[in-house]
Amino acid sequence: MLNVDFSKLDGVVPVIIQDARTLEVLMQSFMNKEALDLSIATGYAHYYSRKRNKVWKKGEISGYLQEIKEIRIDCDNDSLLMKVRQIGDAACHEGYSSCYFRVLKDGDVVADGMKVFNPKNMYR
Amino acid sequence: MLNVDFSKLDGVVPVIIQDARTLEVLMQSFMNKEALDLSIATGYAHYYSRKRNKVWKKGEISGYLQEIKEIRIDCDNDSLLMKVRQIGDAACHEGYSSCYFRVLKDGDVVADGMKVFNPKNMYR
Repeated sequence: MLNVDFSKLDGVVPVIIQDARTLEVLMQSFMNKEALDLSIATGYAHYYSRKRNKVWKKGEISGYLQEIKEIRIDCDNDSLLMKVRQIGDAACHEGYSSCYFRVLKDGDVVADGMKVFNPKNMYR
Repeated sequence: MLNVDFSKLDGVVPVIIQDARTLEVLMQSFMNKEALDLSIATGYAHYYSRKRNKVWKKGEISGYLQEIKEIRIDCDNDSLLMKVRQIGDAACHEGYSSCYFRVLKDGDVVADGMKVFNPKNMYR
C-alpha cells in the first residue's frame, strides 16, 4: 500500500503527471486521499481542486482522460509521480500537449510547446 | 520575466526537476521568490525548505549540484519545471538517481530505482 503523508499540505500532496511514452512532463496537480483512492480504483487520474474544493476526474469535460500506467512515490512519502497515457495527446486546457508550454529564454517567456487543439472549439 | 503566482501556497510554488538528458523526473521541491531568483542568477538549483524555513542550495552538502538547463512555467503560473544536469547522477539523499525510486506494483510498494551511492558513506 502507498503510505502517503498528506499532513504537510493540509490534506493534499503534489502529483506530477508524465507521459509514459514520451516522458514529457504534462502537468502538476494535487491529490487528497479520495482522489488517490479513486485514481487507483478506476485506473484514471482524479485530482483535488483547491479552488473548487472537490475531487474531479481529469478530462471529464474535454474527454481527454489520463489512463494511469504507473504510480511512484518519493523518498519522503509526500509527492507522487504518475506515468499516464494521455487520451487526445493534450493535457493542457489551453490546447497544448503539456501545461509547461512556455520556457524562459534570455529573460523572456516564450511559448514553444506543441498545440494540439484550439480551446475556443473545446470549452463553451 | 517569469510572472510566478506565489499566492496560492503561502509564498511558494512546486517545482519539478527533470534530468535534461534522460528526462527522468528526479525530485519535486518548492521555491519561494528568493530561491527562484538565486537559481536564475547562479544557474544552480536553490529551493525553499518549509521545515527549516530557509533557502538552500541543492547539493551544498553532498556536492551533487543541479546545473539548470531550462526553466518552464505552467499555464496557471503556479508551477515550475526545471531541466537540469544532475552532478553525480543522484538527486535523492537515499542514494538513488531519482527520489521516485519506489513504484506501486500489485498493491505493494517496490523499490526499482537505480542506486548510485550509499548514503551511509555520504552523510555523517
